[in-house]
Amino acid sequence: MKRLFTIPLALMLAVPAMADMAGETYSRWVDDKGEIRLPENYRATWTHLGSWVVADPKAPGYGFHDVYTQPEAVKKFQETGKFPDGTVLVKEIRKLGSGKLTTGDALWATENAVWFVMVKDDRGRFRGNPHWGEGWGWALYEAKAPQVNVSKGYTQDCLACHIPAKPMDWVYVEDYPTLRTPQ
Amino acid sequence: MKRLFTIPLALMLAVPAMADMAGETYSRWVDDKGEIRLPENYRATWTHLGSWVVADPKAPGYGFHDVYTQPEAVKKFQETGKFPDGTVLVKEIRKLGSGKLTTGDALWATENAVWFVMVKDDRGRFRGNPHWGEGWGWALYEAKAPQVNVSKGYTQDCLACHIPAKPMDWVYVEDYPTLRTPQ
Repeated sequence: MKRLFTIPLALMLAVPAMADMAGETYSRWVDDKGEIRLPENYRATWTHLGSWVVADPKAPGYGFHDVYTQPEAVKKFQETGKFPDGTVLVKEIRKLGSGKLTTGDALWATENAVWFVMVKDDRGRFRGNPHWGEGWGWALYEAKAPQVNVSKGYTQDCLACHIPAKPMDWVYVEDYPTLRTPQ
Repeated sequence: MKRLFTIPLALMLAVPAMADMAGETYSRWVDDKGEIRLPENYRATWTHLGSWVVADPKAPGYGFHDVYTQPEAVKKFQETGKFPDGTVLVKEIRKLGSGKLTTGDALWATENAVWFVMVKDDRGRFRGNPHWGEGWGWALYEAKAPQVNVSKGYTQDCLACHIPAKPMDWVYVEDYPTLRTPQ
C-alpha cells in the first residue's frame, strides 16, 4: 500500500478525464463479471447523437430510435475519430405515435420499448463472456424489466444489424452529425 | 467600484445557478435591443428534449425535428413545471433521408434546413419589439445564413403553429419525455 502514497501529486492531477470516464463506466454500469447495467438519466445529461424512425411495425427495428453518449466521448471522438475506452452508447427505442399536427402529419415517440447498450472496451476485459467482443460490450433491455440484460449474447442478438458498420468500429457514426460538426 | 467589493462572499456564492443561465442568455444570445442569435454547440452540450418527423414534403413542417434546451432549464422544469427565465429552446429542422437499413425502412435527418428558437422572458424586456411577446422571444434562421433572424415577427411567422400549446405556455411539453421522467 505504501507505494500508492509515493505517486507525486502533479502526476495524479495529470490523469486525463477520459480515464475517469472509463473508471466510472466500469464501476458504475459494468460489474467485475462484465454484467452491463442500463444507465439512468442519460436523456438529461448525455449528448444526443442522432435519431431515426422505422415506421413499419413488421420491421425488426420498428420504432423511434434516439442515441445518446457521454459528452466526454463526443469530445474525444471529434479529436481522434474514435470512441474512447469507457464510452457508453444508449440506443433508446420507443413506440410510435402519429397524427396531424400544425406542422403536418407527424410521427413521434411514445412509451419505451427496448434499449440497446454498447460499452467500449479497449482492453479485452471479459474474454469468454458472450456479451463482450469486437471491442465492445453489448446489451439489450426491455421496458417491462429494464434492469435485466435479455440478450443471449452479442453474436446472436446484436452483431447482425451492425455488420454494415464494421469498418466504423461497428457504429453508424456517419449518421450522427453531432460527431462531425459543432452544430 | 468600491461597493462591489463590499458584497459578502457568502452572498455572492448564494446566487442561484438559474440567475446565471438568464444572465448568460441575455448577454450571449440576446443583445440589448432584443436581437436573438442562434446558439452554437447545443447538440453536444445541451439536453435533447425530443424529436419528431414530418415526412410529407408539402407539409409546412416537413423534415426531422430535434429540440434542445439547457440542462439547467430541464432541472428547473422538473422541479417547478415551468421553464425558467433565460431558457432557450432550439428546434433544429433537417431534411429527410430514407432507405432500407438493417432495422427496416427508415427515415433519418440529413442536412440542416431551418432552426426555430424561443427564449423565455419573464420580465417583458423588449416591449414593442415584433420578435418578443407572450413571455418569449421568437426567431427563425435558415441554413443558408444562420446568423440572420429571418422571422418577420412572432405573430406572423411563429404563433399560429403554437396555438394548440398555449395552455402549456406555448410549448408542446407533453411531447418531451425528458421533462417528465429520469429516462
